[in-house]
Amino acid sequence: MSGFVPTAASYRPGDRTLPGEYYTSPEVLARDLDRIHARSWLCAGRSTELTEAGQYLVRGVGPDSAILIRGKDGSVRGFHNVCRHRGTRLLDAERGTVSGTIQCPYHAWTYDLEGRLRGAPHMQDVPDFDPSGHSLHPVEVEEWEGFLFFRLVPGGEPLGAQYGQMTERVARFRLGGLRPARRIGYEVRANWKLVLQNFSECLHCPVIHPALSRLSPYLSGANDLTEGPILGGYLTLADGVGSMTLSGRTCARPVGELPDEDHARGYYYSLFPNLLLSLHPDYVMYHLVWPVAPDRTRIECEWLFHPDASADDSFQPDEAVGFWDMTNRQDWHICEQSQAGVASRAYRPGPYSPRESLLAAWDRAYLAALGGFEPQG
Amino acid sequence: MSGFVPTAASYRPGDRTLPGEYYTSPEVLARDLDRIHARSWLCAGRSTELTEAGQYLVRGVGPDSAILIRGKDGSVRGFHNVCRHRGTRLLDAERGTVSGTIQCPYHAWTYDLEGRLRGAPHMQDVPDFDPSGHSLHPVEVEEWEGFLFFRLVPGGEPLGAQYGQMTERVARFRLGGLRPARRIGYEVRANWKLVLQNFSECLHCPVIHPALSRLSPYLSGANDLTEGPILGGYLTLADGVGSMTLSGRTCARPVGELPDEDHARGYYYSLFPNLLLSLHPDYVMYHLVWPVAPDRTRIECEWLFHPDASADDSFQPDEAVGFWDMTNRQDWHICEQSQAGVASRAYRPGPYSPRESLLAAWDRAYLAALGGFEPQG
Amino acid sequence: MSGFVPTAASYRPGDRTLPGEYYTSPEVLARDLDRIHARSWLCAGRSTELTEAGQYLVRGVGPDSAILIRGKDGSVRGFHNVCRHRGTRLLDAERGTVSGTIQCPYHAWTYDLEGRLRGAPHMQDVPDFDPSGHSLHPVEVEEWEGFLFFRLVPGGEPLGAQYGQMTERVARFRLGGLRPARRIGYEVRANWKLVLQNFSECLHCPVIHPALSRLSPYLSGANDLTEGPILGGYLTLADGVGSMTLSGRTCARPVGELPDEDHARGYYYSLFPNLLLSLHPDYVMYHLVWPVAPDRTRIECEWLFHPDASADDSFQPDEAVGFWDMTNRQDWHICEQSQAGVASRAYRPGPYSPRESLLAAWDRAYLAALGGFEPQG
Repeated sequence: MSGFVPTAASYRPGDRTLPGEYYTSPEVLARDLDRIHARSWLCAGRSTELTEAGQYLVRGVGPDSAILIRGKDGSVRGFHNVCRHRGTRLLDAERGTVSGTIQCPYHAWTYDLEGRLRGAPHMQDVPDFDPSGHSLHPVEVEEWEGFLFFRLVPGGEPLGAQYGQMTERVARFRLGGLRPARRIGYEVRANWKLVLQNFSECLHCPVIHPALSRLSPYLSGANDLTEGPILGGYLTLADGVGSMTLSGRTCARPVGELPDEDHARGYYYSLFPNLLLSLHPDYVMYHLVWPVAPDRTRIECEWLFHPDASADDSFQPDEAVGFWDMTNRQDWHICEQSQAGVASRAYRPGPYSPRESLLAAWDRAYLAALGGFEPQG
Repeated sequence: MSGFVPTAASYRPGDRTLPGEYYTSPEVLARDLDRIHARSWLCAGRSTELTEAGQYLVRGVGPDSAILIRGKDGSVRGFHNVCRHRGTRLLDAERGTVSGTIQCPYHAWTYDLEGRLRGAPHMQDVPDFDPSGHSLHPVEVEEWEGFLFFRLVPGGEPLGAQYGQMTERVARFRLGGLRPARRIGYEVRANWKLVLQNFSECLHCPVIHPALSRLSPYLSGANDLTEGPILGGYLTLADGVGSMTLSGRTCARPVGELPDEDHARGYYYSLFPNLLLSLHPDYVMYHLVWPVAPDRTRIECEWLFHPDASADDSFQPDEAVGFWDMTNRQDWHICEQSQAGVASRAYRPGPYSPRESLLAAWDRAYLAALGGFEPQG
Repeated sequence: MSGFVPTAASYRPGDRTLPGEYYTSPEVLARDLDRIHARSWLCAGRSTELTEAGQYLVRGVGPDSAILIRGKDGSVRGFHNVCRHRGTRLLDAERGTVSGTIQCPYHAWTYDLEGRLRGAPHMQDVPDFDPSGHSLHPVEVEEWEGFLFFRLVPGGEPLGAQYGQMTERVARFRLGGLRPARRIGYEVRANWKLVLQNFSECLHCPVIHPALSRLSPYLSGANDLTEGPILGGYLTLADGVGSMTLSGRTCARPVGELPDEDHARGYYYSLFPNLLLSLHPDYVMYHLVWPVAPDRTRIECEWLFHPDASADDSFQPDEAVGFWDMTNRQDWHICEQSQAGVASRAYRPGPYSPRESLLAAWDRAYLAALGGFEPQG
């Protein structure tokens, strides 16, 4: 029994694509970063990356950089990657481990894993210097189903307000216990919103993804979450297809205790604003989407498997990785073609079809998060 | 008998170069593209490139992109390279052929060669969707002497209003029937206006082009068209020189039925805003000039010959190509030196000499096309 | 006997680092270039580079370029590197020699070594053209202790008003007669101010420069000039150390007639806005700092020795060059980490320690030179 209950489609005739400035203007990107990325829960990756005290993950969001680090008490905390002395970036590598403290590489200001300033050479000579007023600036951190999330600007709703609705939906996939097998990074010359919109429909699949379309016809599924910050649904696998892989056969043992119908489906959810989650019977794939410039986006894609899958002779993760790496590149290419086109003076918002109702819903969620704003053409 | 009748020189003492902002400011380039390139007839290349139905040429103008494509009725039409659905760029390659329709690579919206929407998956489910309201945005196209021209923003005068005066002048060169032998592309780190100004005088030839100056002394000619959007004149070949080639000898049979005087001349015309036309007894060269950034310009240069020239043992196109490729590179280098200099705080408009009267005329034509505008220093 | 008399330290509790915009904003960099670099005496290098008439040095300052050239009368003059005709950059190479005149590579306008226009083809045909009104735009030049300085915008105080106080302080090092042995250029992805601030304290030395710290403990010295455009002091060499070199031994004969205490010291001065001067018993090193972009700086470092040093068997300049090339790269790396950090939304001005009093003084000198100005965050 899955938690999947298709809701009424939310297609509204007359829905149209966003004006071009939303994809090309530096001012809009600055506002995206400020209003959305700095104030939203962003997925940083998997909590299993941080198994021991001092292990950390560094995530860049525009000019900002966040440290997520596991403390001696076992919890993961977040800090701005900025020394309180002269502002130096504290940790340079994207992943690593510190031994007990975070020390600034410039003048050795030293913070414990809870962000408190523990050492600051010569500052004892400064009258009234109060170390407790110079803790690292905190970044909020929460965990959900094995994924780590952070929020640069504190305040606002807890993660559960947005993600609670997903918990029951995905429980049977046992996401919290899955293990990563492979990670691939991509640079795409397109606005981050085009990447998310691309994920939100399979109308393009027959044109762009012939291999995918053979495994899973684009009209085979239904949308599930059709309004709000989490959007998605499922596609059904074609007869005789076991999973979305190069061969069409499953490449690992099932990720969880799945009912029969789930063995014939792939579920696809976009979780505003930076997580794309794809659930298959034998693996889970997720994309993290990081805006870099109006026309540039960095994407990190990772594949997760049952924690014991690698013990099986049948374990062939490259079947899933290879299939999606090919599919990803097809998507990035068409996103780049879209970016080029919407930058043209001739581009005008065009009509969404009923098969693109999620994009219209995504645009609504985006505009609501952005707040009242009219880009200057 | 040539159509060449030199007019009175238009030199006006006191004419000075343009202020530096015209060459360095992003705002001026944006205005150049909007007021001039989008609203002028731009040369796209040769109509002989498009011999069969479905054959196309794609031309970028700043963020815009135009498709020129031959229809089943034999005529060439132009369209903005932007799908009416979600704005995707329809054709990626600069040259190619489609079979009967233009299909968007994203969701397969399909247009016939007249730009009419013929297929749009699932749009039949949209109440009141009218395909006839979703034709490709048209781009005007005209042909002149085998050259294709397009205009992004419809309206304004037909091509003949500007080019009519040239027709009789060049008729004897039989431009319409010439065949291309070679094309070379260049990237120049200078403003597009510096490239056109550089073409408009040979005062620099003794300094920059010693080889050219031996073949054709810079004081040997006269200007012909000295005011307006088409400017130019001729230089006379030195005694014993047959053409502007590496050896100084002709490298192909005459391009047309040329009178004696034309066998001792090279004609050079700049046709506002993007075509440079050089007519020699045995070949014709043209440059297309495409602004990319305030300090970057893409140039495409092509050499045309008599349609039967390649049948001759005497046919040595590399003699012309090699000569001008060397000369082009000398010009691009000095344009880059000019770009660096006019960006300086010390640069002030300087005086044009009588040998630079065409530049002053070109600047006037440019400023008139730009419209009233004061760049902010 | 050295001229060194330590003054009272100028530390003011409460001094804090500059706001982030000063390091990241294009508007601030434009103002830095206009208010500071264009109107200050900038060090261009050594006058010994220009030994004969016609020998020149070209220096870029943002979009500007200055020529410093030795005249037939033996004096060095400065000119904007901009032809008065069409603005072309006259000299392309950073160093070279012209034979008697500076000739524009475009149309051969020709200037004598005093900047007067001596030839301008065809300008004699222009009524009222006055060559004397078309001299090269002058750049002020002064020399101090063998260093050449220039100022793009004429006016303001002579060099001596700023540098006079240094003359007695450094006289015994005989700077005027030293000879260069090596020059190294660097590109740093950090704001120019971070480079100067980095030079102005050795609090970072134990963390960043372990080798340097062994030779010269960071608490071993004292500041000398603690307020104003020239700031600095000395560090003492550890027992048994002869100089700041890879081996810790001197690598050349003494640069001047030095008192005993100077054989155990290194002196470090920053001379606003672009010269860093390091005086050691056996060599002198200087850095020239050239802003390129808000987050990019070009640095040129040169090592000077006693004019007869190369005659000695003991002459091993690579001992000094290698030591500082390593140390330079350590500094540039941390400057780049600082640049990344201060660009973050979480960065706030932080407290300077008493060991960073020169930075606070440097910031004050910088803000005074910049003039009243509030960057927009």
